[in-house]
Amino acid sequence: MPLFNRITIIGVGLIGGSLAKDIKKKKLCNKLVGFFRNKHKLDKAIREKIVDIGCPDLRESVKHSDLIILALPVNQIMRVLFEIRNEVNDKTIIMDVGSTKNTITRIADKLGLNFVGTHPVAGSEKKGIDFSTERLFDNSKVIITPTKKTNKKAILKIKALWKKLNANVVVLSPQRHDKILSFTSHLPHLVSFALINSIPSKFLPFGASGLKDTTRIAMSDAEIWSDIFLNNKELLKSLDVLQKELTKMDRLIKINKKSGLVKNLNKAKRKREAID
Amino acid sequence: MPLFNRITIIGVGLIGGSLAKDIKKKKLCNKLVGFFRNKHKLDKAIREKIVDIGCPDLRESVKHSDLIILALPVNQIMRVLFEIRNEVNDKTIIMDVGSTKNTITRIADKLGLNFVGTHPVAGSEKKGIDFSTERLFDNSKVIITPTKKTNKKAILKIKALWKKLNANVVVLSPQRHDKILSFTSHLPHLVSFALINSIPSKFLPFGASGLKDTTRIAMSDAEIWSDIFLNNKELLKSLDVLQKELTKMDRLIKINKKSGLVKNLNKAKRKREAID
Repeated sequence: MPLFNRITIIGVGLIGGSLAKDIKKKKLCNKLVGFFRNKHKLDKAIREKIVDIGCPDLRESVKHSDLIILALPVNQIMRVLFEIRNEVNDKTIIMDVGSTKNTITRIADKLGLNFVGTHPVAGSEKKGIDFSTERLFDNSKVIITPTKKTNKKAILKIKALWKKLNANVVVLSPQRHDKILSFTSHLPHLVSFALINSIPSKFLPFGASGLKDTTRIAMSDAEIWSDIFLNNKELLKSLDVLQKELTKMDRLIKINKKSGLVKNLNKAKRKREAID
Repeated sequence: MPLFNRITIIGVGLIGGSLAKDIKKKKLCNKLVGFFRNKHKLDKAIREKIVDIGCPDLRESVKHSDLIILALPVNQIMRVLFEIRNEVNDKTIIMDVGSTKNTITRIADKLGLNFVGTHPVAGSEKKGIDFSTERLFDNSKVIITPTKKTNKKAILKIKALWKKLNANVVVLSPQRHDKILSFTSHLPHLVSFALINSIPSKFLPFGASGLKDTTRIAMSDAEIWSDIFLNNKELLKSLDVLQKELTKMDRLIKINKKSGLVKNLNKAKRKREAID
């Protein structure tokens, strides 16, 4: 028997589209509904059998589903929670895949929804359904962030869903999630954007692979990442740690302290090699 | 006729080894000599025919050569210039491939050497002859940095050498080189080291491809990069620009200014896409 009867995905892009492909392939529900504001994208998704049913009306699309997946940028997740709250009942599980969790889970709790926050730590700087792919979540980390109000049965079902997609599930509080991700994802993005902005355009053609790698994620979507930065207040603390580290490097160079510099760079090298 | 009669390479590692392989293959000299302090490495290089002659004595190794290539970390380049200055005559061209150019060319000029500074903008975080490879310089940028004292004929011969290796040669003053590279190479390395050091070790397993890409070059050699940082005083100015950019981002987040943030991130995205 499939895990769910009817699943609605709102936001059939890179993450939502990849979820759709695996959910269909692994038969994790009887009917898969996709919400598409855009008629052309709706027709294409039906034609390519990415979903069983395409629906251009948000509220209509979630009716009768026992799982609603919000695969949207963080701000849109919050907006949609408000829009669909009257279309669902206690048994409808709502799951999101947003990159910040604290604000989102707090709002879902306030609205009294049967909500489970999740964050698949996968993806790329690309966006859109054209970049969606089967098995995107194979061996990737997925963080589930229950609160005190989260329904225990719903957590088990969402865990089961991600495990069927071969993800490694980790459970963290929303606060802990936001703290960790502020360092491991949001800060690297912010740094990447800032670094490329610091370099005069006319110098850029002299950049080699090192520059390209450090700034690849600066090609990520500006809207999506602005919202993530604004939604995770932990980021300001991480940024403060980085700025202190840069100031330390600046001082070591100014006072020509090679031993201190080598020590600091070797520490970085060891930390990075440990995750290679 | 080959470009040179006898070439000596001092420092047969990633760059020096790759140079040796191409120089031999393209027959750019009659005899290729390699200096190896380490007997085991010397034997191996001879056995694998990377050089024609291996020499464990630095001064001995450069005798009778019409080109000496210093493929060493920047500080060692300066040390070797002092050590070999009495073994060479006006006709011996000395070329280096170091990542900073201002200090090195100034010292070479002071010693009255027939010196041409170059910097192939290629390589990786790896080091050592085992990572050397044929055609490393194909289509790569190589910057030649003559000073007022640099011999015109020597510049032409060094240009010819790099062109034979299929590199795109660009001529810049040493000062201009150091300014540009402080932004496009040295700053990204410094940021990469600082970023990974800012992240608590226990959080690192939550990092995805974004974190890995932005910090790959933090696996570079600590000694080599400490010397580069200390040898290019322009880096402190570039670092200052970055710190101002980070402070700007910090402020935009603090005052919740989404429009300013989106604008700034879109500027970064466009700049990065232009070099993709």
